[in-house]
Amino acid sequence: MGKRARLDDFQVPFQNGDQARKAFSLADFDPGAKPFSAGSKLADRERLASYAVKLDEMQERLHAQRRERVLLVLQGMDTSGKDGTIRAVFHEVDPLGLRIATFRVPTPDEAAHDFLWRVHRQAPAAGELTIFNRSHYEDVLVPRIRGEVDADELARRYAHIRHFETLLADSGTAILKCFLHISKDQQRERLQARIDDETKHWKFDLADLEAREHWDAYQSAYAEALAATSTERAPWYVVPADSKSHRNVMVAALLLRVFESLNLEYPPAKASLQGITIK
Amino acid sequence: MGKRARLDDFQVPFQNGDQARKAFSLADFDPGAKPFSAGSKLADRERLASYAVKLDEMQERLHAQRRERVLLVLQGMDTSGKDGTIRAVFHEVDPLGLRIATFRVPTPDEAAHDFLWRVHRQAPAAGELTIFNRSHYEDVLVPRIRGEVDADELARRYAHIRHFETLLADSGTAILKCFLHISKDQQRERLQARIDDETKHWKFDLADLEAREHWDAYQSAYAEALAATSTERAPWYVVPADSKSHRNVMVAALLLRVFESLNLEYPPAKASLQGITIK
Repeated sequence: MGKRARLDDFQVPFQNGDQARKAFSLADFDPGAKPFSAGSKLADRERLASYAVKLDEMQERLHAQRRERVLLVLQGMDTSGKDGTIRAVFHEVDPLGLRIATFRVPTPDEAAHDFLWRVHRQAPAAGELTIFNRSHYEDVLVPRIRGEVDADELARRYAHIRHFETLLADSGTAILKCFLHISKDQQRERLQARIDDETKHWKFDLADLEAREHWDAYQSAYAEALAATSTERAPWYVVPADSKSHRNVMVAALLLRVFESLNLEYPPAKASLQGITIK
Repeated sequence: MGKRARLDDFQVPFQNGDQARKAFSLADFDPGAKPFSAGSKLADRERLASYAVKLDEMQERLHAQRRERVLLVLQGMDTSGKDGTIRAVFHEVDPLGLRIATFRVPTPDEAAHDFLWRVHRQAPAAGELTIFNRSHYEDVLVPRIRGEVDADELARRYAHIRHFETLLADSGTAILKCFLHISKDQQRERLQARIDDETKHWKFDLADLEAREHWDAYQSAYAEALAATSTERAPWYVVPADSKSHRNVMVAALLLRVFESLNLEYPPAKASLQGITIK
Protein backbone atom coordinates (compact mmCIF):
# COMPACT_ATOMS: atom_id res chain seq x y z
CA MET A 1 0.00 0.00 0.00
CA GLY A 2 1.68 3.21 -1.20
CA LYS A 3 1.75 6.44 0.74
CA ARG A 4 -0.78 7.98 -1.61
CA ALA A 5 -3.55 5.72 -0.42
CA ARG A 6 -6.94 7.32 -0.70
CA LEU A 7 -9.93 6.37 1.42
CA ASP A 8 -11.69 5.20 -1.73
CA ASP A 9 -9.03 2.56 -2.28
CA PHE A 10 -10.62 0.79 0.68
CA GLN A 11 -14.17 1.04 -0.56
CA VAL A 12 -15.70 -2.28 -1.50
CA PRO A 13 -16.56 -1.91 -5.22
CA PHE A 14 -20.21 -1.57 -6.19
CA GLN A 15 -20.62 -4.75 -8.17
CA ASN A 16 -23.37 -6.26 -10.17
CA GLY A 17 -23.63 -9.94 -10.84
CA ASP A 18 -22.46 -12.95 -8.91
CA GLN A 19 -19.22 -13.34 -10.88
CA ALA A 20 -17.86 -9.92 -9.97
CA ARG A 21 -18.83 -10.41 -6.33
CA LYS A 22 -16.99 -13.69 -6.11
CA ALA A 23 -13.81 -11.92 -7.25
CA PHE A 24 -13.79 -9.75 -4.15
CA SER A 25 -11.53 -11.10 -1.42
CA LEU A 26 -10.47 -9.76 1.96
CA ALA A 27 -7.07 -11.38 1.39
CA ASP A 28 -6.32 -8.43 -0.91
CA PHE A 29 -6.31 -6.13 2.13
CA ASP A 30 -3.50 -6.24 4.66
CA PRO A 31 -4.98 -5.99 8.19
CA GLY A 32 -1.61 -4.70 9.39
CA ALA A 33 -1.50 -1.78 6.94
CA LYS A 34 -1.58 1.75 8.34
CA PRO A 35 -2.18 3.94 5.27
CA PHE A 36 -3.86 6.75 7.19
CA SER A 37 -1.58 6.70 10.19
CA ALA A 38 0.24 9.90 11.07
CA GLY A 39 3.40 7.89 11.67
CA SER A 40 3.28 6.92 15.33
CA LYS A 41 0.75 6.07 17.99
CA LEU A 42 1.21 9.48 19.55
CA ALA A 43 0.82 11.30 16.26
CA ASP A 44 -2.27 9.21 15.52
CA ARG A 45 -3.73 10.17 18.86
CA GLU A 46 -3.20 13.84 18.04
CA ARG A 47 -4.73 13.41 14.60
CA LEU A 48 -7.69 11.60 16.10
CA ALA A 49 -8.14 14.37 18.67
CA SER A 50 -8.38 16.98 15.91
CA TYR A 51 -10.86 14.83 13.97
CA ALA A 52 -12.87 14.23 17.14
CA VAL A 53 -13.34 17.95 17.73
CA LYS A 54 -14.58 18.33 14.15
CA LEU A 55 -16.94 15.39 14.59
CA ASP A 56 -18.41 17.04 17.66
CA GLU A 57 -18.94 20.27 15.73
CA MET A 58 -20.51 18.42 12.80
CA GLN A 59 -22.79 16.48 15.11
CA GLU A 60 -24.04 19.71 16.66
CA ARG A 61 -24.90 21.07 13.23
CA LEU A 62 -26.66 17.82 12.36
CA HIS A 63 -28.68 18.12 15.55
CA ALA A 64 -29.43 21.82 14.99
CA GLN A 65 -30.61 21.23 11.45
CA ARG A 66 -32.78 18.24 12.37
CA ARG A 67 -33.04 17.23 8.74
CA GLU A 68 -30.31 14.71 7.86
CA ARG A 69 -29.54 11.47 9.68
CA VAL A 70 -26.20 9.65 9.87
CA LEU A 71 -25.78 5.92 10.37
CA LEU A 72 -22.45 4.22 11.03
CA VAL A 73 -22.45 0.41 10.86
CA LEU A 74 -19.55 -1.36 12.57
CA GLN A 75 -18.87 -5.02 11.85
CA GLY A 76 -15.88 -7.27 12.39
CA MET A 77 -14.71 -10.48 14.00
CA ASP A 78 -14.50 -10.72 17.81
CA THR A 79 -11.80 -8.40 19.23
CA SER A 80 -11.67 -6.43 15.96
CA GLY A 81 -12.34 -3.33 18.03
CA LYS A 82 -15.96 -2.28 17.56
CA ASP A 83 -16.33 -1.19 21.19
CA GLY A 84 -12.86 0.37 21.23
CA THR A 85 -13.61 2.39 18.10
CA ILE A 86 -16.81 3.76 19.59
CA ARG A 87 -15.00 4.71 22.75
CA ALA A 88 -12.04 6.35 21.04
CA VAL A 89 -13.64 8.09 18.07
CA PHE A 90 -16.74 9.41 19.81
CA HIS A 91 -15.06 10.54 22.97
CA GLU A 92 -15.54 14.21 22.15
CA VAL A 93 -19.03 13.94 20.77
CA ASP A 94 -21.84 15.23 22.97
CA PRO A 95 -23.47 12.17 24.59
CA LEU A 96 -26.81 13.82 23.83
CA GLY A 97 -26.10 13.67 20.11
CA LEU A 98 -25.10 10.05 19.85
CA ARG A 99 -27.12 6.86 20.06
CA ILE A 100 -25.56 3.43 20.01
CA ALA A 101 -27.61 0.38 19.10
CA THR A 102 -25.92 -2.86 20.08
CA PHE A 103 -27.31 -5.98 18.46
CA ARG A 104 -26.81 -9.18 20.41
CA VAL A 105 -28.31 -12.64 19.94
CA PRO A 106 -31.96 -11.94 19.05
CA THR A 107 -34.48 -12.20 21.88
CA PRO A 108 -37.45 -14.55 21.33
CA ASP A 109 -39.59 -11.53 20.43
CA GLU A 110 -37.01 -10.28 17.92
CA ALA A 111 -36.52 -13.75 16.46
CA ALA A 112 -40.28 -13.98 15.93
CA HIS A 113 -40.05 -11.17 13.35
CA ASP A 114 -38.16 -10.74 10.10
CA PHE A 115 -34.45 -10.06 10.54
CA LEU A 116 -34.73 -6.35 9.72
CA TRP A 117 -37.54 -5.64 12.19
CA ARG A 118 -35.40 -4.94 15.24
CA VAL A 119 -32.90 -3.03 13.12
CA HIS A 120 -35.48 -0.73 11.55
CA ARG A 121 -36.64 0.33 15.00
CA GLN A 122 -33.14 1.60 15.72
CA ALA A 123 -32.75 3.67 12.54
CA PRO A 124 -31.59 7.24 13.22
CA ALA A 125 -34.21 9.99 13.42
CA ALA A 126 -33.79 13.43 11.83
CA GLY A 127 -30.78 15.12 13.44
CA GLU A 128 -29.44 11.88 14.92
CA LEU A 129 -26.09 10.17 14.64
CA THR A 130 -26.58 6.47 15.33
CA ILE A 131 -23.98 3.73 15.53
CA PHE A 132 -24.87 0.10 14.92
CA ASN A 133 -22.54 -2.03 17.05
CA ARG A 134 -23.04 -5.20 15.00
CA SER A 135 -26.14 -5.12 12.84
CA HIS A 136 -28.39 -6.92 10.38
CA TYR A 137 -25.19 -8.24 8.79
CA GLU A 138 -24.91 -10.82 11.54
CA ASP A 139 -27.91 -12.47 9.84
CA VAL A 140 -26.00 -13.19 6.65
CA LEU A 141 -22.96 -14.46 8.55
CA VAL A 142 -23.73 -16.63 11.57
CA PRO A 143 -26.68 -18.60 10.09
CA ARG A 144 -24.64 -19.14 6.94
CA ILE A 145 -21.66 -20.65 8.77
CA ARG A 146 -24.03 -22.82 10.78
CA GLY A 147 -25.68 -24.03 7.59
CA GLU A 148 -29.08 -22.64 8.61
CA VAL A 149 -29.64 -20.69 5.38
CA ASP A 150 -29.06 -21.79 1.81
CA ALA A 151 -27.77 -19.79 -1.14
CA ASP A 152 -31.27 -18.74 -2.24
CA GLU A 153 -32.15 -17.43 1.19
CA LEU A 154 -28.81 -15.59 1.39
CA ALA A 155 -29.44 -13.94 -1.97
CA ARG A 156 -32.88 -12.85 -0.78
CA ARG A 157 -31.39 -11.42 2.40
CA TYR A 158 -28.76 -9.45 0.47
CA ALA A 159 -31.55 -8.00 -1.66
CA HIS A 160 -33.64 -7.17 1.41
CA ILE A 161 -30.64 -5.40 2.94
CA ARG A 162 -30.02 -3.36 -0.22
CA HIS A 163 -33.66 -2.33 -0.39
CA PHE A 164 -33.82 -1.51 3.31
CA GLU A 165 -30.71 0.65 3.16
CA THR A 166 -32.06 2.40 0.07
CA LEU A 167 -35.22 3.20 2.02
CA LEU A 168 -33.11 4.76 4.77
CA ALA A 169 -31.02 6.70 2.23
CA ASP A 170 -34.16 7.94 0.43
CA SER A 171 -35.36 9.24 3.77
CA GLY A 172 -32.26 11.38 4.24
CA THR A 173 -29.89 8.97 5.97
CA ALA A 174 -26.21 9.07 5.10
CA ILE A 175 -24.89 5.53 5.61
CA LEU A 176 -21.30 4.47 6.25
CA LYS A 177 -20.39 0.84 6.82
CA CYS A 178 -17.00 -0.16 8.20
CA PHE A 179 -15.59 -3.65 8.33
CA LEU A 180 -12.84 -3.71 10.97
CA HIS A 181 -10.32 -6.04 9.40
CA ILE A 182 -7.93 -7.89 11.73
CA SER A 183 -5.64 -10.84 11.12
CA LYS A 184 -6.11 -14.22 12.75
CA ASP A 185 -2.76 -13.70 14.54
CA GLN A 186 -3.87 -10.38 15.95
CA GLN A 187 -7.08 -11.95 17.20
CA ARG A 188 -5.08 -14.69 18.91
CA GLU A 189 -3.00 -12.07 20.73
CA ARG A 190 -6.05 -10.13 21.86
CA LEU A 191 -7.98 -13.19 23.01
CA GLN A 192 -4.93 -14.50 24.85
CA ALA A 193 -4.51 -11.14 26.57
CA ARG A 194 -8.10 -11.34 27.81
CA ILE A 195 -7.50 -14.84 29.18
CA ASP A 196 -4.22 -13.91 30.84
CA ASP A 197 -5.79 -10.91 32.59
CA GLU A 198 -8.29 -12.33 35.08
CA THR A 199 -10.02 -8.98 35.51
CA LYS A 200 -11.03 -9.24 31.82
CA HIS A 201 -12.66 -12.65 32.12
CA TRP A 202 -16.11 -11.10 32.30
CA LYS A 203 -15.63 -10.03 28.70
CA PHE A 204 -14.91 -13.55 27.61
CA ASP A 205 -16.94 -16.62 26.89
CA LEU A 206 -15.57 -19.88 25.57
CA ALA A 207 -18.32 -19.75 22.94
CA ASP A 208 -16.45 -16.74 21.53
CA LEU A 209 -13.92 -19.19 20.18
CA GLU A 210 -16.47 -20.88 17.94
CA ALA A 211 -16.23 -18.23 15.25
CA ARG A 212 -12.42 -18.37 15.38
CA GLU A 213 -12.55 -22.07 14.52
CA HIS A 214 -14.35 -21.10 11.33
CA TRP A 215 -12.06 -18.16 10.53
CA ASP A 216 -11.66 -18.80 6.82
CA ALA A 217 -15.36 -19.46 6.36
CA TYR A 218 -16.15 -16.17 8.08
CA GLN A 219 -13.66 -14.28 5.91
CA SER A 220 -15.37 -15.68 2.81
CA ALA A 221 -18.84 -15.00 4.16
CA TYR A 222 -17.85 -11.42 5.01
CA ALA A 223 -16.28 -10.87 1.59
CA GLU A 224 -19.41 -12.07 -0.17
CA ALA A 225 -21.73 -10.04 2.07
CA LEU A 226 -19.67 -6.87 1.67
CA ALA A 227 -19.52 -7.25 -2.10
CA ALA A 228 -23.24 -7.99 -2.33
CA THR A 229 -24.30 -4.97 -0.28
CA SER A 230 -21.76 -2.23 -0.99
CA THR A 231 -23.74 0.38 -2.89
CA GLU A 232 -23.19 3.99 -3.82
CA ARG A 233 -25.53 5.17 -1.07
CA ALA A 234 -24.45 2.63 1.52
CA PRO A 235 -20.83 1.77 0.79
CA TRP A 236 -18.66 -0.66 2.73
CA TYR A 237 -15.09 0.17 3.62
CA VAL A 238 -12.41 -2.29 4.71
CA VAL A 239 -10.57 -0.74 7.66
CA PRO A 240 -7.16 -2.29 8.40
CA ALA A 241 -7.51 -2.75 12.16
CA ASP A 242 -4.52 -4.64 13.56
CA SER A 243 -3.30 -1.19 14.65
CA LYS A 244 -5.88 0.31 16.96
CA SER A 245 -4.69 3.86 16.47
CA HIS A 246 -4.83 3.50 12.68
CA ARG A 247 -8.28 1.97 12.88
CA ASN A 248 -9.55 4.92 14.93
CA VAL A 249 -8.05 7.55 12.64
CA MET A 250 -9.43 5.89 9.54
CA VAL A 251 -12.98 5.46 10.85
CA ALA A 252 -12.98 9.09 12.01
CA ALA A 253 -11.68 10.26 8.61
CA LEU A 254 -14.38 8.28 6.78
CA LEU A 255 -17.12 9.63 9.00
CA LEU A 256 -15.86 13.20 8.71
CA ARG A 257 -16.00 12.87 4.94
CA VAL A 258 -19.63 11.78 5.19
CA PHE A 259 -20.47 14.72 7.41
CA GLU A 260 -18.70 17.15 5.09
CA SER A 261 -20.68 15.85 2.13
CA LEU A 262 -23.90 16.88 3.89
CA ASN A 263 -23.03 20.60 3.89
CA LEU A 264 -24.52 21.00 7.34
CA GLU A 265 -25.33 24.57 8.29
CA TYR A 266 -26.89 26.03 11.38
CA PRO A 267 -30.52 26.98 10.78
CA PRO A 268 -31.02 30.68 9.98
CA ALA A 269 -31.76 33.22 12.69
CA LYS A 270 -35.42 33.58 13.55
CA ALA A 271 -36.95 36.92 12.68
CA SER A 272 -39.41 36.44 15.53
CA LEU A 273 -36.55 36.63 18.03
CA GLN A 274 -34.91 39.80 16.69
CA GLY A 275 -34.60 42.59 19.21
CA ILE A 276 -36.41 40.79 22.00
CA THR A 277 -35.46 41.68 25.55
CA ILE A 278 -36.21 39.12 28.22
CA LYS A 279 -37.79 40.56 31.32
CA MET B 1 -23.94 28.45 53.52
CA GLY B 2 -20.87 27.55 55.58
CA LYS B 3 -17.76 25.93 54.19
CA ARG B 4 -18.60 22.68 55.90
CA ALA B 5 -21.60 22.05 53.68
CA ARG B 6 -22.32 18.39 53.18
CA LEU B 7 -24.13 16.91 50.20
CA ASP B 8 -26.89 15.80 52.51
CA ASP B 9 -27.65 19.40 53.41
CA PHE B 10 -29.09 19.65 49.90
CA GLN B 11 -31.20 16.55 50.12
CA VAL B 12 -34.91 17.21 50.11
CA PRO B 13 -36.16 15.78 53.45
CA PHE B 14 -38.17 12.58 53.39
CA GLN B 15 -41.42 13.90 54.70
CA ASN B 16 -44.71 12.41 55.66
CA GLY B 17 -47.93 14.34 55.68
CA ASP B 18 -49.06 17.35 53.76
CA GLN B 19 -48.12 19.85 56.46
CA ALA B 20 -44.44 18.96 56.45
CA ARG B 21 -44.36 19.02 52.67
CA LYS B 22 -45.84 22.47 52.53
CA ALA B 23 -43.02 23.74 54.72
CA PHE B 24 -40.44 22.85 52.11
CA SER B 25 -39.49 25.83 49.95
CA LEU B 26 -36.90 26.33 47.24
CA ALA B 27 -36.45 29.88 48.51
CA ASP B 28 -34.37 28.35 51.31
CA PHE B 29 -31.70 27.41 48.77
CA ASP B 30 -29.50 30.03 47.15
CA PRO B 31 -29.15 29.23 43.42
CA GLY B 32 -25.92 31.25 43.42
CA ALA B 33 -24.26 29.21 46.18
CA LYS B 34 -21.16 27.21 45.33
CA PRO B 35 -20.65 24.98 48.40
CA PHE B 36 -18.84 22.23 46.50
CA SER B 37 -16.77 24.46 44.30
CA ALA B 38 -13.00 24.07 44.44
CA GLY B 39 -12.65 27.85 44.49
CA SER B 40 -12.44 28.87 40.84
CA LYS B 41 -13.76 27.78 37.47
CA LEU B 42 -10.38 26.31 36.62
CA ALA B 43 -10.12 24.41 39.89
CA ASP B 44 -13.67 23.16 39.41
CA ARG B 45 -12.78 21.92 35.98
CA GLU B 46 -9.85 19.99 37.43
CA ARG B 47 -12.01 18.56 40.18
CA LEU B 48 -14.65 17.55 37.67
CA ALA B 49 -11.99 15.90 35.51
CA SER B 50 -10.88 13.73 38.43
CA TYR B 51 -14.49 12.83 39.25
CA ALA B 52 -15.17 12.07 35.59
CA VAL B 53 -12.34 9.54 35.43
CA LYS B 54 -13.75 7.82 38.52
CA LEU B 55 -17.24 7.80 37.03
CA ASP B 56 -15.89 6.11 33.92
CA GLU B 57 -14.19 3.46 36.07
CA MET B 58 -17.35 2.93 38.13
CA GLN B 59 -19.49 2.65 35.03
CA GLU B 60 -17.20 -0.06 33.66
CA ARG B 61 -17.60 -2.05 36.86
CA LEU B 62 -21.35 -1.58 36.72
CA HIS B 63 -21.34 -2.90 33.18
CA ALA B 64 -19.01 -5.79 34.03
CA GLN B 65 -21.13 -6.86 36.97
CA ARG B 66 -24.42 -6.60 35.04
CA ARG B 67 -26.39 -6.71 38.26
CA GLU B 68 -27.10 -3.18 39.53
CA ARG B 69 -28.69 -0.36 37.55
CA VAL B 70 -28.20 3.37 38.05
CA LEU B 71 -30.75 6.05 37.16
CA LEU B 72 -30.04 9.77 37.24
CA VAL B 73 -33.07 12.06 36.85
CA LEU B 74 -32.36 15.65 35.80
CA GLN B 75 -35.04 18.29 36.15
CA GLY B 76 -35.00 22.07 36.15
CA MET B 77 -36.42 25.16 34.50
CA ASP B 78 -35.39 26.01 30.93
CA THR B 79 -31.69 26.92 30.69
CA SER B 80 -30.99 25.36 34.11
CA GLY B 81 -28.35 23.27 32.37
CA LYS B 82 -29.68 19.74 31.94
CA ASP B 83 -28.01 19.29 28.57
CA GLY B 84 -24.85 21.06 29.73
CA THR B 85 -24.57 18.81 32.77
CA ILE B 86 -24.83 15.69 30.65
CA ARG B 87 -22.21 16.99 28.28
CA ALA B 88 -19.76 18.07 30.98
CA VAL B 89 -20.14 15.33 33.59
CA PHE B 90 -20.33 12.35 31.25
CA HIS B 91 -17.62 13.45 28.91
CA GLU B 92 -15.24 10.72 30.07
CA VAL B 93 -17.78 7.95 30.37
CA ASP B 94 -17.70 5.29 27.66
CA PRO B 95 -20.53 6.11 25.22
CA LEU B 96 -21.31 2.38 25.22
CA GLY B 97 -22.09 2.50 28.92
CA LEU B 98 -24.44 5.44 28.95
CA ARG B 99 -28.00 5.81 27.73
CA ILE B 100 -29.85 9.10 27.73
CA ALA B 101 -33.62 9.20 27.58
CA THR B 102 -34.94 12.64 26.67
CA PHE B 103 -38.62 13.21 27.36
CA ARG B 104 -40.29 15.82 25.19
CA VAL B 105 -43.96 16.67 24.73
CA PRO B 106 -45.69 13.26 24.64
CA THR B 107 -46.49 11.85 21.21
CA PRO B 108 -50.14 10.87 20.57
CA ASP B 109 -49.22 7.23 21.23
CA GLU B 110 -47.52 8.15 24.51
CA ALA B 111 -50.36 10.42 25.57
CA ALA B 112 -52.79 7.56 24.96
CA HIS B 113 -51.19 5.66 27.87
CA ASP B 114 -50.74 6.42 31.57
CA PHE B 115 -48.01 8.97 32.27
CA LEU B 116 -45.49 6.39 33.50
CA TRP B 117 -45.79 4.10 30.46
CA ARG B 118 -43.20 5.80 28.27
CA VAL B 119 -40.91 6.29 31.26
CA HIS B 120 -40.98 2.65 32.36
CA ARG B 121 -39.82 1.57 28.89
CA GLN B 122 -36.69 3.65 29.40
CA ALA B 123 -35.76 2.26 32.82
CA PRO B 124 -32.13 1.10 33.02
CA ALA B 125 -31.38 -2.58 32.47
CA ALA B 126 -28.90 -4.56 34.58
CA GLY B 127 -25.45 -3.01 34.16
CA GLU B 128 -26.83 0.21 32.66
CA LEU B 129 -26.38 3.83 33.62
CA THR B 130 -29.35 5.79 32.31
CA ILE B 131 -30.00 9.52 32.47
CA PHE B 132 -33.50 10.93 32.26
CA ASN B 133 -33.28 14.34 30.61
CA ARG B 134 -36.62 15.59 31.95
CA SER B 135 -38.87 12.81 33.14
CA HIS B 136 -42.23 11.78 34.58
CA TYR B 137 -41.94 14.84 36.82
CA GLU B 138 -43.04 17.02 33.91
CA ASP B 139 -46.45 15.44 34.46
CA VAL B 140 -46.87 16.92 37.91
CA LEU B 141 -45.63 20.34 36.78
CA VAL B 142 -46.90 21.48 33.40
CA PRO B 143 -50.50 20.17 33.69
CA ARG B 144 -50.68 21.64 37.17
CA ILE B 145 -49.69 25.14 36.06
CA ARG B 146 -52.13 24.88 33.18
CA GLY B 147 -54.88 23.86 35.57
CA GLU B 148 -55.39 20.53 33.84
CA VAL B 149 -55.10 18.45 37.02
CA ASP B 150 -56.66 19.07 40.42
CA ALA B 151 -55.20 18.43 43.87
CA ASP B 152 -56.64 14.92 44.08
CA GLU B 153 -55.14 13.91 40.76
CA LEU B 154 -51.79 15.43 41.77
CA ALA B 155 -51.80 13.46 45.01
CA ARG B 156 -52.52 10.27 43.06
CA ARG B 157 -49.67 11.03 40.67
CA TYR B 158 -47.21 11.61 43.52
CA ALA B 159 -48.24 8.25 44.97
CA HIS B 160 -47.89 6.55 41.59
CA ILE B 161 -44.40 8.04 41.23
CA ARG B 162 -43.36 6.84 44.68
CA HIS B 163 -44.62 3.33 43.96
CA PHE B 164 -43.01 3.26 40.53
CA GLU B 165 -39.64 4.36 41.86
CA THR B 166 -39.89 1.79 44.66
CA LEU B 167 -40.48 -0.87 42.03
CA LEU B 168 -37.30 0.21 40.25
CA ALA B 169 -35.36 0.31 43.52
CA ASP B 170 -36.62 -3.15 44.52
CA SER B 171 -35.34 -4.40 41.19
CA GLY B 172 -31.81 -3.22 41.94
CA THR B 173 -31.90 0.33 40.62
CA ALA B 174 -30.02 3.05 42.49
CA ILE B 175 -31.90 6.29 41.87
CA LEU B 176 -30.55 9.83 42.12
CA LYS B 177 -32.75 12.83 41.34
CA CYS B 178 -31.25 16.29 40.84
CA PHE B 179 -33.16 19.52 40.60
CA LEU B 180 -30.95 22.09 38.87
CA HIS B 181 -31.80 25.25 40.76
CA ILE B 182 -31.27 28.57 38.96
CA SER B 183 -32.48 32.05 39.77
CA LYS B 184 -34.89 33.98 37.61
CA ASP B 185 -32.15 36.53 36.92
CA GLN B 186 -29.76 33.85 35.77
CA GLN B 187 -32.42 32.48 33.44
CA ARG B 188 -32.95 35.94 31.98
CA GLU B 189 -29.24 36.24 31.22
CA ARG B 190 -29.09 32.84 29.58
CA LEU B 191 -32.24 33.36 27.51
CA GLN B 192 -31.04 36.80 26.42
CA ALA B 193 -27.69 35.33 25.40
CA ARG B 194 -29.47 32.83 23.17
CA ILE B 195 -31.48 35.60 21.55
CA ASP B 196 -28.47 37.84 21.05
CA ASP B 197 -26.49 35.05 19.37
CA GLU B 198 -28.29 34.31 16.10
CA THR B 199 -26.48 30.99 15.70
CA LYS B 200 -28.30 29.83 18.84
CA HIS B 201 -31.78 30.66 17.60
CA TRP B 202 -32.41 27.05 16.68
CA LYS B 203 -32.33 26.26 20.38
CA PHE B 204 -35.02 28.80 21.12
CA ASP B 205 -38.76 28.96 20.80
CA LEU B 206 -40.93 31.83 21.97
CA ALA B 207 -43.10 29.23 23.70
CA ASP B 208 -40.09 28.68 26.01
CA LEU B 209 -41.01 31.95 27.65
CA GLU B 210 -44.39 30.66 28.79
CA ALA B 211 -42.95 28.85 31.80
CA ARG B 212 -40.93 31.93 32.73
CA GLU B 213 -44.13 33.94 32.98
CA HIS B 214 -45.27 31.51 35.64
CA TRP B 215 -41.93 31.40 37.47
CA ASP B 216 -43.26 31.55 41.01
CA ALA B 217 -45.96 29.00 40.30
CA TYR B 218 -43.34 26.65 38.91
CA GLN B 219 -41.10 27.13 41.95
CA SER B 220 -44.01 26.21 44.21
CA ALA B 221 -45.02 23.28 42.05
CA TYR B 222 -41.43 22.00 42.03
CA ALA B 223 -41.09 22.40 45.79
CA GLU B 224 -44.26 20.43 46.40
CA ALA B 225 -43.34 17.71 43.91
CA LEU B 226 -39.83 17.34 45.33
CA ALA B 227 -41.11 17.16 48.89
CA ALA B 228 -43.80 14.65 47.95
CA THR B 229 -41.45 12.30 46.14
CA SER B 230 -38.09 12.52 47.93
CA THR B 231 -37.69 9.11 49.54
CA GLU B 232 -34.82 7.22 51.07
CA ARG B 233 -34.42 5.06 47.99
CA ALA B 234 -35.08 7.81 45.46
CA PRO B 235 -33.95 11.06 47.06
CA TRP B 236 -34.11 14.50 45.49
CA TYR B 237 -31.22 16.94 45.77
CA VAL B 238 -31.35 20.66 45.14
CA VAL B 239 -28.28 21.59 43.08
CA PRO B 240 -27.40 25.30 43.13
CA ALA B 241 -26.88 25.85 39.40
CA ASP B 242 -26.30 29.54 38.66
CA SER B 243 -22.63 28.56 38.45
CA LYS B 244 -22.23 25.95 35.74
CA SER B 245 -18.92 24.67 37.05
CA HIS B 246 -20.36 24.22 40.55
CA ARG B 247 -23.41 22.47 39.17
CA ASN B 248 -21.23 19.99 37.29
CA VAL B 249 -19.00 19.26 40.27
CA MET B 250 -21.94 18.74 42.58
CA VAL B 251 -23.87 16.40 40.27
CA ALA B 252 -20.70 14.38 39.69
CA ALA B 253 -20.03 14.19 43.45
CA LEU B 254 -23.59 13.02 44.13
CA LEU B 255 -23.43 10.38 41.44
CA LEU B 256 -20.02 9.15 42.59
CA ARG B 257 -21.42 8.71 46.07
CA VAL B 258 -24.22 6.57 44.65
CA PHE B 259 -21.75 4.43 42.72
CA GLU B 260 -19.53 4.02 45.77
CA SER B 261 -22.48 2.82 47.83
CA LEU B 262 -22.95 -0.05 45.40
CA ASN B 263 -19.56 -1.64 46.18
CA LEU B 264 -19.10 -2.56 42.56
CA GLU B 265 -16.49 -5.23 41.93
CA TYR B 266 -15.32 -6.89 38.76
CA PRO B 267 -16.77 -10.38 38.44
CA PRO B 268 -14.38 -13.14 39.58
CA ALA B 269 -12.03 -14.87 37.18
CA LYS B 270 -13.53 -17.85 35.36
CA ALA B 271 -12.00 -21.20 36.26
CA SER B 272 -12.92 -22.44 32.79
CA LEU B 273 -10.48 -19.95 31.24
CA GLN B 274 -7.46 -20.76 33.41
CA GLY B 275 -4.39 -21.83 31.50
CA ILE B 276 -6.02 -21.77 28.10
CA THR B 277 -3.79 -21.04 25.13
CA ILE B 278 -5.48 -19.70 22.02
CA LYS B 279 -4.33 -21.36 18.81
